Amino acid sequence: MASQEARAQHAEPTPIRRPRADQARLVADVLRHQIHAGGYSDGLPTEQDLASEFFVSRNTVREALAALKDEGLIDRGPRTGTHVAIRKYDHGLDALVGLKETFKGYGEIRNEVRTTMNVAAPPSVANRLQLSPSEPVVFIERLRYLGDLPLSLDMTYLAPDIGREVIEHSLEVNDVFALIEQVTGRRLGGATLAVESVAADAHSAAILQVPDGAPVLLLERLTHLDDGRPVDLEYIRMRGDRITLRSNLVRGN
Amino acid sequence: MASQEARAQHAEPTPIRRPRADQARLVADVLRHQIHAGGYSDGLPTEQDLASEFFVSRNTVREALAALKDEGLIDRGPRTGTHVAIRKYDHGLDALVGLKETFKGYGEIRNEVRTTMNVAAPPSVANRLQLSPSEPVVFIERLRYLGDLPLSLDMTYLAPDIGREVIEHSLEVNDVFALIEQVTGRRLGGATLAVESVAADAHSAAILQVPDGAPVLLLERLTHLDDGRPVDLEYIRMRGDRITLRSNLVRGN
Repeated sequence: MASQEARAQHAEPTPIRRPRADQARLVADVLRHQIHAGGYSDGLPTEQDLASEFFVSRNTVREALAALKDEGLIDRGPRTGTHVAIRKYDHGLDALVGLKETFKGYGEIRNEVRTTMNVAAPPSVANRLQLSPSEPVVFIERLRYLGDLPLSLDMTYLAPDIGREVIEHSLEVNDVFALIEQVTGRRLGGATLAVESVAADAHSAAILQVPDGAPVLLLERLTHLDDGRPVDLEYIRMRGDRITLRSNLVRGN
Repeated sequence: MASQEARAQHAEPTPIRRPRADQARLVADVLRHQIHAGGYSDGLPTEQDLASEFFVSRNTVREALAALKDEGLIDRGPRTGTHVAIRKYDHGLDALVGLKETFKGYGEIRNEVRTTMNVAAPPSVANRLQLSPSEPVVFIERLRYLGDLPLSLDMTYLAPDIGREVIEHSLEVNDVFALIEQVTGRRLGGATLAVESVAADAHSAAILQVPDGAPVLLLERLTHLDDGRPVDLEYIRMRGDRITLRSNLVRGN
Protein backbone atom coordinates (compact mmCIF):
# COMPACT_ATOMS: atom_id res chain seq x y z
CA MET A 1 0.00 0.00 0.00
CA ALA A 2 2.71 2.39 1.04
CA SER A 3 4.66 1.67 -2.13
CA GLN A 4 1.65 2.24 -4.40
CA GLU A 5 0.96 5.52 -2.74
CA ALA A 6 4.60 6.41 -3.15
CA ARG A 7 4.66 5.65 -6.86
CA ALA A 8 1.50 7.63 -7.42
CA GLN A 9 3.16 10.62 -5.82
CA HIS A 10 6.60 10.41 -7.34
CA ALA A 11 5.91 13.06 -9.91
CA GLU A 12 5.84 16.22 -7.82
CA PRO A 13 5.33 17.52 -4.34
CA THR A 14 1.76 17.53 -3.23
CA PRO A 15 0.54 19.96 -0.59
CA ILE A 16 -0.35 18.30 2.70
CA ARG A 17 -3.97 17.17 2.63
CA ARG A 18 -4.74 15.80 6.04
CA PRO A 19 -7.08 16.42 8.97
CA ARG A 20 -6.51 19.95 10.22
CA ALA A 21 -5.44 18.81 13.71
CA ASP A 22 -2.63 16.69 12.20
CA GLN A 23 -1.46 19.57 10.05
CA ALA A 24 -1.59 22.01 12.94
CA ARG A 25 0.55 19.70 15.09
CA LEU A 26 3.15 19.53 12.33
CA VAL A 27 3.24 23.29 11.92
CA ALA A 28 3.48 23.75 15.70
CA ASP A 29 6.36 21.24 15.90
CA VAL A 30 8.41 23.05 13.29
CA LEU A 31 7.69 26.51 14.73
CA ARG A 32 8.55 25.26 18.23
CA HIS A 33 11.91 24.08 16.97
CA GLN A 34 12.58 27.42 15.27
CA ILE A 35 11.75 29.30 18.45
CA HIS A 36 13.99 27.08 20.57
CA ALA A 37 16.76 27.50 18.04
CA GLY A 38 16.61 31.27 18.62
CA GLY A 39 14.55 32.17 15.55
CA TYR A 40 11.89 34.88 15.12
CA SER A 41 13.59 37.39 17.39
CA ASP A 42 11.64 40.15 15.58
CA GLY A 43 8.34 38.30 15.85
CA LEU A 44 6.72 35.51 13.87
CA PRO A 45 5.55 35.93 10.24
CA THR A 46 1.88 36.79 9.64
CA GLU A 47 -0.72 34.02 9.54
CA GLN A 48 -0.89 34.55 5.78
CA ASP A 49 2.86 34.09 5.33
CA LEU A 50 2.95 31.02 7.57
CA ALA A 51 0.02 29.56 5.63
CA SER A 52 1.93 29.83 2.35
CA GLU A 53 5.18 28.62 3.92
CA PHE A 54 3.51 25.43 5.15
CA PHE A 55 0.96 25.03 2.31
CA VAL A 56 -1.90 24.98 4.80
CA SER A 57 -4.97 27.12 5.49
CA ARG A 58 -4.96 30.14 7.79
CA ASN A 59 -7.28 28.24 10.13
CA THR A 60 -4.63 25.55 10.49
CA VAL A 61 -1.99 28.19 11.23
CA ARG A 62 -4.30 29.71 13.86
CA GLU A 63 -4.73 26.31 15.50
CA ALA A 64 -0.95 25.76 15.60
CA LEU A 65 -0.35 29.23 17.07
CA ALA A 66 -3.09 28.64 19.67
CA ALA A 67 -1.26 25.47 20.78
CA LEU A 68 2.04 27.36 21.12
CA LYS A 69 0.27 30.12 23.05
CA ASP A 70 -1.18 27.49 25.42
CA GLU A 71 2.36 26.25 26.00
CA GLY A 72 3.34 29.81 26.95
CA LEU A 73 5.83 29.93 24.09
CA ILE A 74 4.35 32.92 22.23
CA ASP A 75 2.26 36.02 22.89
CA ARG A 76 -0.30 37.24 20.38
CA GLY A 77 -1.97 40.64 20.16
CA PRO A 78 -4.28 42.09 17.50
CA ARG A 79 -1.98 45.07 16.95
CA THR A 80 1.39 43.78 18.11
CA GLY A 81 1.44 40.55 16.11
CA THR A 82 2.94 37.29 17.34
CA HIS A 83 6.07 37.31 19.46
CA VAL A 84 8.24 34.79 21.25
CA ALA A 85 7.29 34.91 24.94
CA ILE A 86 9.85 32.59 26.47
CA ARG A 87 12.73 30.55 25.23
CA LYS A 88 13.83 27.26 26.61
CA TYR A 89 17.25 26.65 28.04
CA ASP A 90 19.36 23.78 26.74
CA HIS A 91 20.69 21.24 29.19
CA GLY A 92 23.29 18.88 27.72
CA LEU A 93 22.88 15.15 28.29
CA ASP A 94 26.27 14.14 26.93
CA ALA A 95 28.51 15.12 29.80
CA LEU A 96 28.05 15.06 33.54
CA VAL A 97 27.95 18.70 34.54
CA GLY A 98 26.12 20.63 37.22
CA LEU A 99 23.46 23.23 36.51
CA LYS A 100 25.77 26.12 37.33
CA GLU A 101 28.37 24.87 34.84
CA THR A 102 25.64 24.21 32.25
CA PHE A 103 24.14 27.67 32.38
CA LYS A 104 27.39 29.60 32.61
CA GLY A 105 26.45 31.48 29.44
CA TYR A 106 22.87 32.31 30.39
CA GLY A 107 23.14 33.89 33.81
CA GLU A 108 23.58 33.21 37.48
CA ILE A 109 22.29 29.97 39.01
CA ARG A 110 21.14 30.54 42.57
CA ASN A 111 20.09 27.76 44.94
CA GLU A 112 17.46 28.15 47.60
CA VAL A 113 18.37 25.47 50.13
CA ARG A 114 15.04 24.20 51.46
CA THR A 115 16.41 21.38 53.61
CA THR A 116 19.71 19.86 54.70
CA MET A 117 19.52 17.01 57.18
CA ASN A 118 20.75 13.59 58.15
CA VAL A 119 18.17 10.90 57.50
CA ALA A 120 18.17 7.15 57.86
CA ALA A 121 18.46 5.86 54.31
CA PRO A 122 15.35 4.02 53.10
CA PRO A 123 16.45 0.50 52.02
CA SER A 124 16.28 1.26 48.30
CA VAL A 125 18.32 4.45 48.65
CA ALA A 126 20.84 2.61 50.83
CA ASN A 127 21.03 -0.11 48.20
CA ARG A 128 21.82 2.27 45.38
CA LEU A 129 24.47 4.08 47.44
CA GLN A 130 25.89 0.70 48.60
CA LEU A 131 25.18 1.43 52.27
CA SER A 132 23.47 -0.66 54.92
CA PRO A 133 19.75 0.00 55.33
CA SER A 134 19.07 2.74 57.90
CA GLU A 135 22.64 3.97 57.71
CA PRO A 136 22.48 7.77 57.86
CA VAL A 137 22.67 9.68 54.60
CA VAL A 138 22.72 13.43 54.05
CA PHE A 139 19.61 14.74 52.36
CA ILE A 140 19.50 18.12 50.61
CA GLU A 141 16.55 19.76 48.88
CA ARG A 142 17.25 22.76 46.69
CA LEU A 143 15.12 24.95 44.48
CA ARG A 144 17.34 26.21 41.68
CA TYR A 145 16.82 29.57 40.02
CA LEU A 146 18.24 31.08 36.86
CA GLY A 147 17.99 34.73 37.84
CA ASP A 148 14.42 35.04 39.18
CA LEU A 149 13.11 32.00 37.33
CA PRO A 150 12.66 28.74 39.27
CA LEU A 151 14.04 26.05 36.94
CA SER A 152 14.34 22.85 38.94
CA LEU A 153 13.63 21.22 42.27
CA ASP A 154 16.44 18.86 43.27
CA MET A 155 16.38 16.25 46.02
CA THR A 156 19.80 14.82 46.75
CA TYR A 157 20.99 11.88 48.89
CA LEU A 158 24.73 11.87 49.59
CA ALA A 159 26.91 9.15 51.08
CA PRO A 160 27.34 10.13 54.75
CA ASP A 161 31.10 10.75 54.90
CA ILE A 162 31.02 12.96 51.81
CA GLY A 163 27.67 14.59 52.55
CA ARG A 164 28.81 15.77 55.98
CA GLU A 165 31.70 17.65 54.42
CA VAL A 166 29.72 18.95 51.46
CA ILE A 167 27.16 20.69 53.66
CA GLU A 168 29.92 22.53 55.51
CA HIS A 169 30.21 24.62 52.33
CA SER A 170 27.78 27.10 50.83
CA LEU A 171 25.14 25.21 48.86
CA GLU A 172 23.59 28.50 47.74
CA VAL A 173 26.20 29.23 45.09
CA ASN A 174 28.01 25.93 44.47
CA ASP A 175 27.09 22.86 42.43
CA VAL A 176 27.09 19.72 44.57
CA PHE A 177 29.27 18.05 41.91
CA ALA A 178 32.00 20.65 42.38
CA LEU A 179 31.78 20.30 46.17
CA ILE A 180 32.02 16.50 46.02
CA GLU A 181 35.20 16.77 43.96
CA GLN A 182 36.56 19.42 46.32
CA VAL A 183 35.97 17.52 49.57
CA THR A 184 37.01 14.08 48.25
CA GLY A 185 39.97 15.28 46.20
CA ARG A 186 38.74 12.85 43.53
CA ARG A 187 37.06 13.36 40.17
CA LEU A 188 33.54 12.18 39.49
CA GLY A 189 33.58 9.26 37.09
CA GLY A 190 30.12 9.28 35.61
CA ALA A 191 26.45 8.69 36.27
CA THR A 192 23.47 6.65 35.20
CA LEU A 193 20.49 8.75 34.24
CA ALA A 194 16.78 8.06 33.80
CA VAL A 195 14.52 10.70 32.23
CA GLU A 196 10.74 10.71 32.45
CA SER A 197 7.94 13.06 31.54
CA VAL A 198 5.50 13.35 34.46
CA ALA A 199 2.73 15.68 35.60
CA ALA A 200 3.81 17.92 38.48
CA ASP A 201 2.11 17.03 41.76
CA ALA A 202 0.36 19.98 43.39
CA HIS A 203 3.15 20.59 45.83
CA SER A 204 6.04 20.54 43.32
CA ALA A 205 3.95 22.66 40.94
CA ALA A 206 3.50 25.35 43.58
CA ILE A 207 7.22 25.39 44.36
CA LEU A 208 8.22 25.53 40.68
CA GLN A 209 5.52 28.16 39.97
CA VAL A 210 3.82 26.12 37.25
CA PRO A 211 0.16 25.04 37.03
CA ASP A 212 -0.86 21.90 38.90
CA GLY A 213 -0.28 18.91 36.59
CA ALA A 214 2.09 20.80 34.28
CA PRO A 215 4.56 18.53 32.44
CA VAL A 216 7.98 18.30 34.10
CA LEU A 217 11.13 16.39 33.24
CA LEU A 218 11.89 14.01 36.12
CA LEU A 219 15.55 12.97 36.17
CA GLU A 220 16.92 10.27 38.44
CA ARG A 221 20.69 10.43 38.46
CA LEU A 222 23.11 8.19 40.37
CA THR A 223 26.63 9.62 40.26
CA HIS A 224 29.81 7.77 41.15
CA LEU A 225 33.40 8.77 41.82
CA ASP A 226 36.16 7.83 39.39
CA ASP A 227 36.83 4.74 41.52
CA GLY A 228 33.27 3.55 40.83
CA ARG A 229 31.80 4.24 44.27
CA PRO A 230 28.24 5.65 44.05
CA VAL A 231 27.99 8.74 46.23
CA ASP A 232 25.15 10.96 45.00
CA LEU A 233 21.55 9.95 44.21
CA GLU A 234 19.36 12.79 42.92
CA TYR A 235 15.74 13.22 41.95
CA ILE A 236 15.46 16.36 39.82
CA ARG A 237 12.23 17.96 38.59
CA MET A 238 12.87 20.41 35.75
CA ARG A 239 10.18 22.70 34.38
CA GLY A 240 9.08 21.24 31.05
CA ASP A 241 8.26 24.69 29.70
CA ARG A 242 11.77 25.93 30.33
CA ILE A 243 14.26 23.13 29.75
CA THR A 244 15.19 21.11 26.68
CA LEU A 245 17.60 18.21 27.17
CA ARG A 246 20.05 17.82 24.30
CA SER A 247 22.26 14.94 23.30
CA ASN A 248 24.34 13.54 20.47
CA LEU A 249 23.80 9.91 19.58
CA VAL A 250 26.25 7.65 17.79
CA ARG A 251 25.26 4.62 15.77
CA GLY A 252 26.91 1.61 17.40
CA ASN A 253 27.20 -1.90 16.02
CA MET B 1 23.23 28.11 58.22
CA ALA B 2 23.54 24.84 56.39
CA SER B 3 26.75 24.08 58.20
CA GLN B 4 25.28 24.82 61.63
CA GLU B 5 22.36 22.59 60.91
CA ALA B 6 24.81 19.96 59.72
CA ARG B 7 26.88 20.09 62.87
CA ALA B 8 23.82 19.89 65.04
CA GLN B 9 22.81 16.73 63.28
CA HIS B 10 26.15 15.01 63.05
CA ALA B 11 25.45 12.75 65.99
CA GLU B 12 22.90 10.31 64.59
CA PRO B 13 20.29 9.89 61.90
CA THR B 14 17.12 11.85 62.50
CA PRO B 15 13.82 10.71 61.06
CA ILE B 16 12.52 13.01 58.34
CA ARG B 17 10.43 15.80 59.88
CA ARG B 18 9.04 17.83 57.05
CA PRO B 19 5.68 18.87 55.59
CA ARG B 20 3.76 15.74 54.68
CA ALA B 21 3.56 16.63 50.97
CA ASP B 22 7.38 16.81 50.78
CA GLN B 23 7.74 13.47 52.52
CA ALA B 24 5.12 11.85 50.34
CA ARG B 25 6.91 13.03 47.20
CA LEU B 26 10.14 11.47 48.44
CA VAL B 27 8.48 8.17 49.25
CA ALA B 28 6.74 8.16 45.87
CA ASP B 29 10.04 8.87 44.06
CA VAL B 30 11.80 5.95 45.69
CA LEU B 31 8.87 3.55 45.18
CA ARG B 32 8.57 4.64 41.54
CA HIS B 33 12.20 3.79 41.01
CA GLN B 34 11.76 0.36 42.62
CA ILE B 35 8.77 -0.39 40.43
CA HIS B 36 10.61 0.65 37.27
CA ALA B 37 13.56 -1.46 38.32
CA GLY B 38 11.28 -4.50 38.37
CA GLY B 39 10.68 -4.65 42.11
CA TYR B 40 7.53 -5.64 44.01
CA SER B 41 6.47 -8.34 41.58
CA ASP B 42 4.46 -9.94 44.42
CA GLY B 43 2.85 -6.65 45.41
CA LEU B 44 3.96 -3.73 47.54
CA PRO B 45 4.50 -3.96 51.32
CA THR B 46 1.65 -2.93 53.61
CA GLU B 47 1.18 0.74 54.52
CA GLN B 48 2.47 -0.13 57.99
CA ASP B 49 5.66 -1.70 56.64
CA LEU B 50 6.28 1.17 54.23
CA ALA B 51 5.74 3.65 57.06
CA SER B 52 8.47 2.01 59.14
CA GLU B 53 10.78 1.60 56.14
CA PHE B 54 10.62 5.32 55.39
CA PHE B 55 10.22 6.58 58.99
CA VAL B 56 7.01 8.41 58.05
CA SER B 57 3.37 8.23 59.11
CA ARG B 58 0.81 5.96 57.46
CA ASN B 59 -0.98 9.06 56.18
CA THR B 60 2.18 10.05 54.33
CA VAL B 61 2.45 6.57 52.82
CA ARG B 62 -1.19 6.81 51.74
CA GLU B 63 -0.52 10.12 50.04
CA ALA B 64 2.49 8.69 48.20
CA LEU B 65 0.52 5.63 47.07
CA ALA B 66 -2.35 7.86 45.92
CA ALA B 67 0.10 9.77 43.70
CA LEU B 68 1.43 6.55 42.17
CA LYS B 69 -2.14 5.36 41.61
CA ASP B 70 -2.93 8.65 39.82
CA GLU B 71 0.03 7.98 37.56
CA GLY B 72 -1.47 4.58 36.74
CA LEU B 73 1.57 2.84 38.18
CA ILE B 74 -0.20 0.80 40.86
CA ASP B 75 -3.62 -0.68 41.62
CA ARG B 76 -5.00 -0.77 45.16
CA GLY B 77 -7.84 -2.85 46.53
CA PRO B 78 -9.11 -3.25 50.10
CA ARG B 79 -8.67 -7.04 49.95
CA THR B 80 -6.06 -7.49 47.24
CA GLY B 81 -3.48 -5.04 48.56
CA THR B 82 -1.28 -2.86 46.39
CA HIS B 83 0.08 -4.19 43.11
CA VAL B 84 2.14 -2.90 40.23
CA ALA B 85 -0.26 -2.04 37.40
CA ILE B 86 2.12 -1.16 34.61
CA ARG B 87 5.82 -1.05 34.17
CA LYS B 88 7.70 1.38 32.03
CA TYR B 89 9.90 0.35 29.16
CA ASP B 90 13.49 1.57 28.98
CA HIS B 91 14.65 3.38 25.89
CA GLY B 92 18.41 3.91 25.71
CA LEU B 93 19.73 7.36 24.91
CA ASP B 94 23.35 6.35 24.44
CA ALA B 95 23.23 4.73 21.04
CA LEU B 96 21.23 5.50 17.95
CA VAL B 97 18.85 2.57 17.59
CA GLY B 98 15.32 2.20 16.29
CA LEU B 99 12.38 1.23 18.46
CA LYS B 100 12.25 -2.29 17.06
CA GLU B 101 15.91 -2.85 17.95
CA THR B 102 15.40 -1.25 21.38
CA PHE B 103 12.49 -3.43 22.39
CA LYS B 104 13.81 -6.69 20.99
CA GLY B 105 13.59 -8.24 24.43
CA TYR B 106 10.11 -7.00 25.32
CA GLY B 107 7.96 -8.06 22.39
CA GLU B 108 6.98 -7.22 18.86
CA ILE B 109 6.97 -3.62 17.66
CA ARG B 110 4.24 -3.06 15.10
CA ASN B 111 3.80 0.15 13.13
CA GLU B 112 0.47 1.50 12.02
CA VAL B 113 1.35 3.65 9.02
CA ARG B 114 -1.05 6.60 9.17
CA THR B 115 0.43 8.59 6.29
CA THR B 116 3.12 8.34 3.63
CA MET B 117 3.30 11.20 1.14
CA ASN B 118 5.49 13.61 -0.72
CA VAL B 119 5.24 17.11 0.66
CA ALA B 120 6.97 20.38 -0.17
CA ALA B 121 9.44 20.88 2.67
CA PRO B 122 8.63 23.86 4.89
CA PRO B 123 11.70 26.16 4.90
CA SER B 124 12.87 25.12 8.34
CA VAL B 125 12.59 21.41 7.56
CA ALA B 126 14.42 21.98 4.25
CA ASN B 127 17.09 23.87 6.12
CA ARG B 128 17.77 21.07 8.58
CA LEU B 129 17.86 18.45 5.80
CA GLN B 130 20.10 20.75 3.71
CA LEU B 131 17.55 20.96 0.87
CA SER B 132 16.16 23.96 -1.01
CA PRO B 133 12.90 25.33 0.40
CA SER B 134 9.85 23.68 -1.20
CA GLU B 135 11.94 20.78 -2.47
CA PRO B 136 9.83 17.66 -2.03
CA VAL B 137 10.47 15.52 1.03
CA VAL B 138 8.88 12.22 1.99
CA PHE B 139 6.67 12.46 5.06
CA ILE B 140 5.68 9.41 7.11
CA GLU B 141 3.46 9.28 10.17
CA ARG B 142 3.45 6.09 12.20
CA LEU B 143 1.76 5.01 15.40
CA ARG B 144 4.02 2.45 17.03
CA TYR B 145 2.69 -0.36 19.18
CA LEU B 146 4.40 -2.79 21.52
CA GLY B 147 1.92 -5.63 21.27
CA ASP B 148 -1.46 -3.91 21.72
CA LEU B 149 -0.05 -0.90 23.54
CA PRO B 150 0.39 2.35 21.59
CA LEU B 151 3.81 3.65 22.67
CA SER B 152 4.75 6.49 20.36
CA LEU B 153 3.54 8.66 17.52
CA ASP B 154 6.37 9.38 15.06
CA MET B 155 6.40 11.99 12.32
CA THR B 156 9.32 11.58 9.94
CA TYR B 157 10.70 13.75 7.13
CA LEU B 158 13.14 11.95 4.83
CA ALA B 159 15.46 13.37 2.16
CA PRO B 160 13.62 12.78 -1.15
CA ASP B 161 16.01 10.36 -2.88
CA ILE B 162 16.23 8.12 0.18
CA GLY B 163 12.61 8.54 1.25
CA ARG B 164 11.29 7.37 -2.13
CA GLU B 165 13.18 4.11 -1.80
CA VAL B 166 12.42 3.63 1.89
CA ILE B 167 8.65 3.73 1.31
CA GLU B 168 8.93 0.99 -1.32
CA HIS B 169 9.51 -1.33 1.64
CA SER B 170 7.14 -2.39 4.40
CA LEU B 171 7.04 0.29 7.07
CA GLU B 172 4.74 -1.88 9.19
CA VAL B 173 7.48 -4.17 10.46
CA ASN B 174 10.76 -2.36 9.77
CA ASP B 175 12.56 0.46 11.55
CA VAL B 176 13.18 3.43 9.25
CA PHE B 177 16.83 3.39 10.41
CA ALA B 178 17.31 -0.14 9.12
CA LEU B 179 15.63 0.76 5.82
CA ILE B 180 17.80 3.86 5.34
CA GLU B 181 20.93 1.75 5.77
CA GLN B 182 19.53 -0.88 3.44
CA VAL B 183 18.59 1.45 0.56
CA THR B 184 21.68 3.66 0.81
CA GLY B 185 24.19 0.89 1.45
CA ARG B 186 25.71 3.23 4.04
CA ARG B 187 25.73 3.24 7.83
CA LEU B 188 24.04 5.92 9.85
CA GLY B 189 26.63 8.11 11.54
CA GLY B 190 24.72 9.66 14.41
CA ALA B 191 22.04 12.09 15.41
CA THR B 192 21.35 15.21 17.42
CA LEU B 193 18.53 14.80 19.89
CA ALA B 194 16.35 17.20 21.85
CA VAL B 195 14.06 15.89 24.60
CA GLU B 196 11.17 17.83 26.09
CA SER B 197 8.32 17.12 28.48
CA VAL B 198 5.07 18.49 27.02
CA ALA B 199 1.34 18.05 27.57
CA ALA B 200 -0.29 15.96 24.84
CA ASP B 201 -2.57 18.02 22.58
CA ALA B 202 -6.09 16.59 22.33
CA HIS B 203 -5.46 14.96 18.98
CA SER B 204 -2.17 13.23 19.90
CA ALA B 205 -3.69 12.17 23.21
CA ALA B 206 -6.58 10.45 21.45
CA ILE B 207 -4.21 8.62 19.10
CA LEU B 208 -1.89 7.52 21.93
CA GLN B 209 -4.89 6.57 24.11
CA VAL B 210 -3.89 8.81 27.01
CA PRO B 211 -5.92 11.56 28.70
CA ASP B 212 -5.93 15.00 27.11
CA GLY B 213 -2.95 16.95 28.46
CA ALA B 214 -1.12 13.83 29.70
CA PRO B 215 2.66 14.27 29.90
CA VAL B 216 4.55 12.96 26.87
CA LEU B 217 8.23 12.89 25.97
CA LEU B 218 8.68 14.91 22.77
CA LEU B 219 11.88 13.95 20.95
CA GLU B 220 13.24 15.85 17.98
CA ARG B 221 15.94 13.80 16.29
CA LEU B 222 17.98 14.73 13.21
CA THR B 223 19.90 11.72 11.93
CA HIS B 224 22.78 11.79 9.48
CA LEU B 225 24.61 9.21 7.40
CA ASP B 226 28.20 8.30 8.18
CA ASP B 227 29.29 10.89 5.59
CA GLY B 228 27.60 13.61 7.63
CA ARG B 229 24.62 14.20 5.35
CA PRO B 230 21.38 14.78 7.34
CA VAL B 231 18.66 12.55 5.92
CA ASP B 232 16.00 11.93 8.57
CA LEU B 233 14.20 14.52 10.75
CA GLU B 234 11.75 13.05 13.25
CA TYR B 235 9.30 14.38 15.81
CA ILE B 236 8.47 11.57 18.21
CA ARG B 237 5.85 11.69 20.96
CA MET B 238 6.35 8.90 23.52
CA ARG B 239 3.82 8.13 26.23
CA GLY B 240 5.25 9.51 29.46
CA ASP B 241 3.50 6.81 31.48
CA ARG B 242 5.19 4.03 29.51
CA ILE B 243 8.70 5.09 28.53
CA THR B 244 11.79 5.95 30.56
CA LEU B 245 14.81 7.27 28.67
CA ARG B 246 18.10 5.99 30.04
CA SER B 247 21.62 7.19 29.57
CA ASN B 248 25.13 6.97 30.94
CA LEU B 249 26.98 10.21 31.51
CA VAL B 250 30.71 10.66 31.70
CA ARG B 251 32.45 13.46 33.54
CA GLY B 252 34.47 15.42 30.96
CA ASN B 253 37.06 18.07 31.58
